[in-house]
Amino acid sequence: MTRYGTQYGPDITFLGVDRCDLDDPGSYAGADVVVVGAPFDGGTSHRPGARFGPMAIRQSCYLPQDGSRPHLALRVDALRDIRVVDAGDVEMYSGDVERSIGALEEAVFAVASSGAVPLVLGGDHTIALPDATGVARHLGYGNVSMLHFDAHADTGHIEFGSLYGHGQPMRRLIESGALRGDRFLQLGLRGYWPGPETLSWMAGQNMRSFEMTEIGRRGLDDCLDEAFAIATDGCEGVFLSVDVDVCDPGHAPGTGTPEPGGLSARQLLDSVRRICLELPVVGIDIVEVAPPYDHADITAYLANRVALEALSGIAARRRGITHDPAGPLLEGR
Amino acid sequence: MTRYGTQYGPDITFLGVDRCDLDDPGSYAGADVVVVGAPFDGGTSHRPGARFGPMAIRQSCYLPQDGSRPHLALRVDALRDIRVVDAGDVEMYSGDVERSIGALEEAVFAVASSGAVPLVLGGDHTIALPDATGVARHLGYGNVSMLHFDAHADTGHIEFGSLYGHGQPMRRLIESGALRGDRFLQLGLRGYWPGPETLSWMAGQNMRSFEMTEIGRRGLDDCLDEAFAIATDGCEGVFLSVDVDVCDPGHAPGTGTPEPGGLSARQLLDSVRRICLELPVVGIDIVEVAPPYDHADITAYLANRVALEALSGIAARRRGITHDPAGPLLEGR
Amino acid sequence: MTRYGTQYGPDITFLGVDRCDLDDPGSYAGADVVVVGAPFDGGTSHRPGARFGPMAIRQSCYLPQDGSRPHLALRVDALRDIRVVDAGDVEMYSGDVERSIGALEEAVFAVASSGAVPLVLGGDHTIALPDATGVARHLGYGNVSMLHFDAHADTGHIEFGSLYGHGQPMRRLIESGALRGDRFLQLGLRGYWPGPETLSWMAGQNMRSFEMTEIGRRGLDDCLDEAFAIATDGCEGVFLSVDVDVCDPGHAPGTGTPEPGGLSARQLLDSVRRICLELPVVGIDIVEVAPPYDHADITAYLANRVALEALSGIAARRRGITHDPAGPLLEGR
Amino acid sequence: MTRYGTQYGPDITFLGVDRCDLDDPGSYAGADVVVVGAPFDGGTSHRPGARFGPMAIRQSCYLPQDGSRPHLALRVDALRDIRVVDAGDVEMYSGDVERSIGALEEAVFAVASSGAVPLVLGGDHTIALPDATGVARHLGYGNVSMLHFDAHADTGHIEFGSLYGHGQPMRRLIESGALRGDRFLQLGLRGYWPGPETLSWMAGQNMRSFEMTEIGRRGLDDCLDEAFAIATDGCEGVFLSVDVDVCDPGHAPGTGTPEPGGLSARQLLDSVRRICLELPVVGIDIVEVAPPYDHADITAYLANRVALEALSGIAARRRGITHDPAGPLLEGR
Amino acid sequence: MTRYGTQYGPDITFLGVDRCDLDDPGSYAGADVVVVGAPFDGGTSHRPGARFGPMAIRQSCYLPQDGSRPHLALRVDALRDIRVVDAGDVEMYSGDVERSIGALEEAVFAVASSGAVPLVLGGDHTIALPDATGVARHLGYGNVSMLHFDAHADTGHIEFGSLYGHGQPMRRLIESGALRGDRFLQLGLRGYWPGPETLSWMAGQNMRSFEMTEIGRRGLDDCLDEAFAIATDGCEGVFLSVDVDVCDPGHAPGTGTPEPGGLSARQLLDSVRRICLELPVVGIDIVEVAPPYDHADITAYLANRVALEALSGIAARRRGITHDPAGPLLEGR
Amino acid sequence: MTRYGTQYGPDITFLGVDRCDLDDPGSYAGADVVVVGAPFDGGTSHRPGARFGPMAIRQSCYLPQDGSRPHLALRVDALRDIRVVDAGDVEMYSGDVERSIGALEEAVFAVASSGAVPLVLGGDHTIALPDATGVARHLGYGNVSMLHFDAHADTGHIEFGSLYGHGQPMRRLIESGALRGDRFLQLGLRGYWPGPETLSWMAGQNMRSFEMTEIGRRGLDDCLDEAFAIATDGCEGVFLSVDVDVCDPGHAPGTGTPEPGGLSARQLLDSVRRICLELPVVGIDIVEVAPPYDHADITAYLANRVALEALSGIAARRRGITHDPAGPLLEGR
Repeated sequence: MTRYGTQYGPDITFLGVDRCDLDDPGSYAGADVVVVGAPFDGGTSHRPGARFGPMAIRQSCYLPQDGSRPHLALRVDALRDIRVVDAGDVEMYSGDVERSIGALEEAVFAVASSGAVPLVLGGDHTIALPDATGVARHLGYGNVSMLHFDAHADTGHIEFGSLYGHGQPMRRLIESGALRGDRFLQLGLRGYWPGPETLSWMAGQNMRSFEMTEIGRRGLDDCLDEAFAIATDGCEGVFLSVDVDVCDPGHAPGTGTPEPGGLSARQLLDSVRRICLELPVVGIDIVEVAPPYDHADITAYLANRVALEALSGIAARRRGITHDPAGPLLEGR
Repeated sequence: MTRYGTQYGPDITFLGVDRCDLDDPGSYAGADVVVVGAPFDGGTSHRPGARFGPMAIRQSCYLPQDGSRPHLALRVDALRDIRVVDAGDVEMYSGDVERSIGALEEAVFAVASSGAVPLVLGGDHTIALPDATGVARHLGYGNVSMLHFDAHADTGHIEFGSLYGHGQPMRRLIESGALRGDRFLQLGLRGYWPGPETLSWMAGQNMRSFEMTEIGRRGLDDCLDEAFAIATDGCEGVFLSVDVDVCDPGHAPGTGTPEPGGLSARQLLDSVRRICLELPVVGIDIVEVAPPYDHADITAYLANRVALEALSGIAARRRGITHDPAGPLLEGR
Repeated sequence: MTRYGTQYGPDITFLGVDRCDLDDPGSYAGADVVVVGAPFDGGTSHRPGARFGPMAIRQSCYLPQDGSRPHLALRVDALRDIRVVDAGDVEMYSGDVERSIGALEEAVFAVASSGAVPLVLGGDHTIALPDATGVARHLGYGNVSMLHFDAHADTGHIEFGSLYGHGQPMRRLIESGALRGDRFLQLGLRGYWPGPETLSWMAGQNMRSFEMTEIGRRGLDDCLDEAFAIATDGCEGVFLSVDVDVCDPGHAPGTGTPEPGGLSARQLLDSVRRICLELPVVGIDIVEVAPPYDHADITAYLANRVALEALSGIAARRRGITHDPAGPLLEGR
Repeated sequence: MTRYGTQYGPDITFLGVDRCDLDDPGSYAGADVVVVGAPFDGGTSHRPGARFGPMAIRQSCYLPQDGSRPHLALRVDALRDIRVVDAGDVEMYSGDVERSIGALEEAVFAVASSGAVPLVLGGDHTIALPDATGVARHLGYGNVSMLHFDAHADTGHIEFGSLYGHGQPMRRLIESGALRGDRFLQLGLRGYWPGPETLSWMAGQNMRSFEMTEIGRRGLDDCLDEAFAIATDGCEGVFLSVDVDVCDPGHAPGTGTPEPGGLSARQLLDSVRRICLELPVVGIDIVEVAPPYDHADITAYLANRVALEALSGIAARRRGITHDPAGPLLEGR
Repeated sequence: MTRYGTQYGPDITFLGVDRCDLDDPGSYAGADVVVVGAPFDGGTSHRPGARFGPMAIRQSCYLPQDGSRPHLALRVDALRDIRVVDAGDVEMYSGDVERSIGALEEAVFAVASSGAVPLVLGGDHTIALPDATGVARHLGYGNVSMLHFDAHADTGHIEFGSLYGHGQPMRRLIESGALRGDRFLQLGLRGYWPGPETLSWMAGQNMRSFEMTEIGRRGLDDCLDEAFAIATDGCEGVFLSVDVDVCDPGHAPGTGTPEPGGLSARQLLDSVRRICLELPVVGIDIVEVAPPYDHADITAYLANRVALEALSGIAARRRGITHDPAGPLLEGR
Repeated sequence: MTRYGTQYGPDITFLGVDRCDLDDPGSYAGADVVVVGAPFDGGTSHRPGARFGPMAIRQSCYLPQDGSRPHLALRVDALRDIRVVDAGDVEMYSGDVERSIGALEEAVFAVASSGAVPLVLGGDHTIALPDATGVARHLGYGNVSMLHFDAHADTGHIEFGSLYGHGQPMRRLIESGALRGDRFLQLGLRGYWPGPETLSWMAGQNMRSFEMTEIGRRGLDDCLDEAFAIATDGCEGVFLSVDVDVCDPGHAPGTGTPEPGGLSARQLLDSVRRICLELPVVGIDIVEVAPPYDHADITAYLANRVALEALSGIAARRRGITHDPAGPLLEGR
């Protein structure tokens, strides 16, 4: 099902962690997290390039690619304190969305079935459909809530004549029953899409979407508190889907559909940390990093840190580490 | 007076709205807003490129150029709920500032005289002189106040031997009587210009300028409240002039004279929305987008959203739409 | 079949020529050339971005977009001396290669059936399959020869599990019988692809491929002479397919799979001119311009000139203009 | 000891201030501040380019290079109200770190000995070792505290086999006794470096490091208050070391080791102003501006303003200027 | 008349040569060549940025800015063997073309009157009018021939309503009688401008224009031979005007109106060397370097070398140096 | 001696060939070629960045990183027909040139001693000293000739106070006796360095340097013929050192000291192929690729192809493959 190594560029793993092979379940047995690359951008409605996202996210770091990243504030080394392995990329031909998402869904399902958390590096947001479906197939349809960071609701019906693309995954997930609409939390929406008909559909599903105006007025932490309460109400696990365009284009220029007025990088990192520390996260994807539009790699660096912040949160939660990140960094002062 | 279509590049309109012809008043009779391009950068004291601003601002959007933009938070579609048309570019030869601003002033006056709000896409800030003059000629000298977002006061006397340029329009407007100095509100000033003599002149005019330190200490909304009270005291209309360099260069790198330490994109968008919702805006210009220095088009995207936020505010105000943008996005939750 | 206007960005035509509508045959009846945009890059094996090719090629010119381009050397104004119209873009969803190429083939066939030369602006090279097929359906399978400028043979069998992509169109065209292998001329090949098996298949088809070493040793004009003789032997028309990566990356950096050591821009322009002046060209495509990787738009400028050089050659041939482009530019000296 | 003019590029001074010659003490006698360029990037562990920092910081400004910069909010012209001169660059061969830092230490010591504040423009952070040592040699080892803005602690022991590099200067300074560990204040740390062993060493030195989580929770001004109290407890002077990577990569992309989630440019400028207004600053360096990775020069612009904000703070402190920067900009309103 | 130093950026001279002051004739008495900066781009019909040309051309070199450049092949050090000084920039406000070219003409006339060769660094090609006029005023109208390297004829009549701009200088020069049409040599023309009417006017002036097709067919040296013969027939001096867009955009991307299919950098350098070695050059300008569109500074590097090649040719001619540049570089082999 | 994997970025090999370990001679026993990365740029006199050269050259290719590259014209697959392995990077701290070149010399000597050809990927040209010395130590001082492609002679004496840097390696090699001056062939020199004294030293060593003027006049192949005759006169092996700046900046912008007027990419590739086919090459380095200054990776692509062209030539020579690359590509035509 999976191809050896990465689809674009050399055969590397996320910051040098060990490799596993999805065709060999023993290679990831006992893993806490399995990284999967989803180098697909055939579903983008505007700027492509996210196919190079997995390669960029895996390596955009100035530290050695040595499979170790001690988190300064949390005092945990996620790449060592829990077992994180990288399965390489799923082969996803951008010219054939249906075959591509099918292959990815099987890969994610295999990871989830092993008990590990799949961490999928996109790719455009089309992949949220197979990502969350793969997890829900294992944990049970309707048993997983969604925390979705994005400038866009991604609840379109049909675009360019297709049911599958980066503007429609959330609708497909709710329609199929994989995820419950009333446990679907969206943060960071803004701009000029979608229109009334789609918003009406969303309201009909009892989705809870926090537009930037509400976040600005109430504060992000207050909105997160409300979202956490909904997310954990009757669901066993939480899927975290992070579209980097939730951040302002000043912080994340390298993306396909930039929408001004978003979160700062700091806000996104803090949110992802809280989620993975406080909630039972069962699947993650990080999407829409488009290196051709990046400069000085700052968007790829950000996505790499989103992944590490998530992994560090999971590690601290699993290992019961309780260092207070808001206190003084060093003991004694 | 106007040239057919755009001066630089192909003949397009703002996000696909209908075209009008300034030489044919019937073509924009009844319009709420008329977009006018001012592709001039002969007045820049440093980096040129703003001549390509109109072309960039009109099309920098990842959505279809279909003349429709439903605002997610305000629940209004400015391009449909009010009548917005685009008159193309005024021919402005950057090598001849005096002839260029004369032509623009006539174009803006024609729009204002029709009862529509001119929305002028610059170009460098030189154009604020003809923009606000054109409006004041219609509404009466001294009858229009100014809300001016900028890192710079633009109240210079003579630069490079000329009275006209992007550092002097605000002085010319007050000197001519078109605008009253004591109804001139500036937000976002910072940096190392102008010097004491010019500041003294500004104080003598009873201008009210909010430097970033004051904004940071008091909060932007508090400053806006004060500014709104002054702006509406004895003036019938408000002219809104937005220089994108009011934002931090991290959010708006594509500009001619970037000054670190500015507003975030979110702050600018929120301010523009408030102004157009709460005040009787009679003219707008958006200036100093310099595409050659932009990357991933993020500055042009921002300026496009400033225009849409303004149009959406006007539309909501005119149509009496009262959806609370700070509440939950979707009904029922 | 076609969408109104362009798929990405505003609704523009090639340098301002008149628009036509493929659904309204009367709108292009009597046209000499019909421009068709093919904004597809789902078939690229590496860097995407060619979906923005049509938009970039149509407008990358510093002269007014006024539907006139007098050729300095040929003394013909192709946009006026013959009738060139633009049908806008065919809707091509990059996530669905089969549906996309089907739609394009119908569009090209419609144009060819009208008697006009289709000039297709790509898009990745996947589109050569529907482009040449659409023409061959009108003129007869096997009745059209191919002049193919490229660094790559594009004769792969299956890539990423698909028969359709930018590395396989030439094989599909010969397999289907649309084009004859022994009237298939390739110029500019180089590098490290394909391998022996594919080369053997190509030899078996009696293709004639000029690798850069042969071109360098013999001279390009000598190779063209040989190619012209083959191309016109028993075929009624010639299809010209220009992949900009035939040029050296120094001259055409904005492309998906750059291969160092190619033709200069001058050589490509001269070749295209000769072909359209000397041969009965019945269809053209210009592909693999990837704006995200371009700088200062030089690749888009080049592709725009390739289109104009072709159009000018066709115009001179059709209008019987015999000005000697190699003589003094001006009369009297 | 110093080379004539700048090591890279033409012979310019910081915004056009007068030149001095370190070999001629009379040329800077009585100066308040002496600018010194340290064009060294041999100590970077990742992206180089900071060698061009001095040249970029000196001139990245859109105003005339005329040796005058009236600060809008502080009402002081640092380049005129105090005496600021520029000694050009110290010759620093990036291939020989030990010789280079030796030469720089002598230059800084010479400046400090004259009673002037050295303002060193880096260069990578390796130079903090000679910078602070040069000052401490004059004022007495242990008599100078450190305010260090950075994403990184820079307290590594040995990297690439060397004691000297941009990740180790702070350790060397404490080890040598030049600076006291318990008067060493760090602001803005974050990310995944260093590991527990180094953190333990830091705690053992009684350093006080404010990680971004603490800053975010408490507010920057509160942290600064605490830091100021420590810094002035028993030390006569404060050294201010600003690594531009303390800012978020969105605000400062042009740097060698960008770490997402940092301060905004506004926060950095405000902090530097407070420090130089409120504390007895005796030396400054501004480091890690890497122009090859900058875009639209925004990082260089920021560093230029950090320098000016520092100079303006010093000038206001020395000249007793008490204009309230948080009040209305103009008198009378 | 001239401003002290450069108009944009710091006060530097061409590669560190001595400065002179046009208001002080003694400062350039006896100079062989006087460099003059013309930072004007108000006359560009498309991409601006050439105002930064003088600053970029002066310093784009990786060698020390030390006023010495030994030419490897010619064995002459133009900056030392003849006297080259730099007068800084003429103040040219891009918003006022008429005043700007008036000021430049006076500056060039002053230089020419002193007996020195003016080497004017543009700026857009508008400046050729004052440049060549200033020289002709000294040597006599009609007494100077023109060697003009360009993709464009620059013989337009009126553009954007103005007689003055970068598309019209050559027409103005012939109309005024400053230069003779029949001693006007153009090399490198190509593309789609101007149209028949203008070509007819050019033919009527007996201009001799070498389009790239003719150059390609005959070879550049053969065309130069013919041009040299005409240029020296009855004229005492030759003015050399080099628009960098004569080179292919692959070699010179940083320019305002790039036209594919031009000369290589090598061909331009060789031509400029021949001209300055073999002909009595009395004035030079190098124009249309637009740094905002350059990458890795390659266009500015090229223009710097065009200037040096010209200076070296002049130096070798004046000093009678006869080293054969086509022979072995080193003696003895 | 060597570090595991690459010094900067993830652990990859040249296009996916097998890895070897210099500390384990068995891992490269019997290899034909051993790739060694030299990530050092501490010796650059201007733009740094070449430290990222090895990482960029290893992977800049759009084909799968699968350890196979069938050469289209030569009909050889160098990565399979001979044994090519990659030893990763030698740890080279840019801040310590002497230690770095010592480590590299040992690595190259180890490779050469095993009988394999070292292919060193730089890194700046400083590394030619340890590269050629390492080979000469094995084959005998004076027994190896040099073919050196470069814009610069690299025969400086002392720069920035150091004997070691990217401008001096060729002098050091001759001084030490490792290479004979009279078997030292340089191709592509041009520009304004070095001065007469150094040229005189070079002549005294009986070096043979082909400046671009001579190459342009005689043709590159004629010069190569002469060089080959000298290179093989009394020497057993040839070292090939390719500085990418031998190419014109239009073809190789991503380099530290670009000099306009160089070879085309095609010329360089053809030359390297001839050399490796016709001469007994015993060592190769490819240097001065500086990714921070590259765009669209075209310089890295070129360097990757220089390496492959060399490997393919070696493979064809060793395997006795005699396919005529200048003949028709395909059999039968």
